[in-house]
Amino acid sequence: MSVEQWHDQRLVRVRELLGQQSSVQGILLSDLNDVRWITSFTGSSGWLLITAADMWLFTDGRYTEQAAAQINAVGVAAQVIECRTQQSVFEALAHRLSKCSHIWFQSAHVTFDVFQALKTSLPVDLVPAPSALGAIRRIKDAGEILLMSEACSIADQALAEVLPMLLSEPSEKNVRDQLDYLMRQLGADGPSYDTIVATGPINAARPHHSPTNTRIEEGHTLIIDVGALVNGYHSDMTRSFVIGEMNGEQVHAYEAVREAQAAGVALAGPGVATRDVDAVCRKVLHEAGLAEMFNHGTGHGVGLLIHEDPYLNSSSTAILQPGDVVTIEPGVYRGGFGGLRVEDLIVITEFSNRTLNTSPKEPTCLPSPLTN
Amino acid sequence: MSVEQWHDQRLVRVRELLGQQSSVQGILLSDLNDVRWITSFTGSSGWLLITAADMWLFTDGRYTEQAAAQINAVGVAAQVIECRTQQSVFEALAHRLSKCSHIWFQSAHVTFDVFQALKTSLPVDLVPAPSALGAIRRIKDAGEILLMSEACSIADQALAEVLPMLLSEPSEKNVRDQLDYLMRQLGADGPSYDTIVATGPINAARPHHSPTNTRIEEGHTLIIDVGALVNGYHSDMTRSFVIGEMNGEQVHAYEAVREAQAAGVALAGPGVATRDVDAVCRKVLHEAGLAEMFNHGTGHGVGLLIHEDPYLNSSSTAILQPGDVVTIEPGVYRGGFGGLRVEDLIVITEFSNRTLNTSPKEPTCLPSPLTN
Repeated sequence: MSVEQWHDQRLVRVRELLGQQSSVQGILLSDLNDVRWITSFTGSSGWLLITAADMWLFTDGRYTEQAAAQINAVGVAAQVIECRTQQSVFEALAHRLSKCSHIWFQSAHVTFDVFQALKTSLPVDLVPAPSALGAIRRIKDAGEILLMSEACSIADQALAEVLPMLLSEPSEKNVRDQLDYLMRQLGADGPSYDTIVATGPINAARPHHSPTNTRIEEGHTLIIDVGALVNGYHSDMTRSFVIGEMNGEQVHAYEAVREAQAAGVALAGPGVATRDVDAVCRKVLHEAGLAEMFNHGTGHGVGLLIHEDPYLNSSSTAILQPGDVVTIEPGVYRGGFGGLRVEDLIVITEFSNRTLNTSPKEPTCLPSPLTN
Repeated sequence: MSVEQWHDQRLVRVRELLGQQSSVQGILLSDLNDVRWITSFTGSSGWLLITAADMWLFTDGRYTEQAAAQINAVGVAAQVIECRTQQSVFEALAHRLSKCSHIWFQSAHVTFDVFQALKTSLPVDLVPAPSALGAIRRIKDAGEILLMSEACSIADQALAEVLPMLLSEPSEKNVRDQLDYLMRQLGADGPSYDTIVATGPINAARPHHSPTNTRIEEGHTLIIDVGALVNGYHSDMTRSFVIGEMNGEQVHAYEAVREAQAAGVALAGPGVATRDVDAVCRKVLHEAGLAEMFNHGTGHGVGLLIHEDPYLNSSSTAILQPGDVVTIEPGVYRGGFGGLRVEDLIVITEFSNRTLNTSPKEPTCLPSPLTN
């Protein structure tokens, strides 16, 4: 299928939702990820109005030429309207809503203040969009999975190239800088998120640590959480290390985390509840006596956002479906011990799942491999 | 003044606002930039509740240890409460609001859906916070200006180091990668935003172009828009070039843009309307016959966000004040011609302003300088 056809199918999905609700005549999209998903427009400011027959993209002068070119390139039939201020967007919207009585707006995205301004400016009733529209990007098409596979492959390669460097006592920042540089050299538009390199008893105990000048020392735990951005799509992967000989506590914790992660991946498939995937990871760590050290959810969807639906945690109600792309990433953390996390990005397939990244979980370039 | 005193003074400013409104007993902050500004907490998830006597930070298990350490390091008296889900944050909030009847919430930040959930969960009336609270971070203190000066200096140095490379026909991406790498080597936490390198008749005509594999050719216009991130604070600067001999149209346009930018900087000072700064830039370009090619606002505030209040454009109503840090960045763009923009970051002082970046506007490392 071509890029044009993917974009066309996305629009068809959106208009099908609209067609199911006869009392609503239009959809106002303000979430720029959704706008990009449909139109391929990548600017930082814009609104998209979709009716059964028409589509208009409202943006400012910085982006009008770019928007027209990007929309054209994927064959989307949208008219670009230049508006300098938010108020002029609202006026331009009102002008095109004369035949509508009700439209959907993105209540999970529009702020309280913007909602008040919309309500005052538009001659229609604003109806919170249904959850199906909020989840419209959740199931990925082949084009999206291709981009995320490419992003995974770039992160895999960057991590492999950086491993020898770990033996020379670099700082967390040194490793982060090298990973980010390599990913771009390998074709990424940039890192998928702020690359995490966390080592030692304090830093590695923070799941979302920001790299510092702390040096990677023998015997300390080390977490590297790295992904690449390719054409708007993210990858997400974590590997953990100890330089040199592991002590008994580290071996126990690492094996438990690996086993928990493998159990999560083994369970994940179509029809499986996300909370059950979370539970199976938690169960393994509980049996290893480490449940208290696993202080975050098991995973999340990935796509045009690094964190998106579905979430895999104890309060999630989502059921996995083919085309879901999610992380499975249990970890253990404690001040004094440090931390260890193992994370893969998987796509749910018709019968099971497929892991998109390929980095080994037992690096052999280190003087002493993690497990024997 | 010490870091502790800066944070203390910020909290004093917030509580002063609260004290002025006797019917409101608390402030619920959801904008993580505001939370960081007060507490120094840098996590990606959290809520801050401030009353006259107390302060609580609600965050999830990934960040509780980090939050306590960061808050401690700047001497802020806040209690960290661990909450795994949004619903448990709301329950924990409700528990601490028993003595309150009305609290402010950030209506410019909270989404429609979250507002509905808050309204259902909390035993208080939610009042949109006054604009003074929304603008609480606008006037920068000496600590913030120091960080932005450092960020400017890093971007200045990275740009200077990258200039010789422009002669070897690099791609836009090559230059972007090198700038981002150098900024980190020079101590930045990363680029301040997606670095813009845009060249040629099409790409440079897009004010917010994303770097591609397009090569920088002799005779083409080239825009480099680059800033560094230091401890959460941004810098923002643009320089424009033509490799080799400029043609008459380029000379005319570049001189007009430089003159417009200089006129904006000359006018900016305390008590001056932001729209007047915009108007003076626009007037110079109008007189040069280029008004149509200047298709964006003249500037914006910079701080913990790359774009924040005050904005300098024709519909802005803000008046500049000492401590405002804003960009002045007129430019001209047209498909076929390409584009040229000149941007400085300035801080408004008691009587005038001071430019925080120092990159020359007539690079001499190029075979033929831009102006004679």
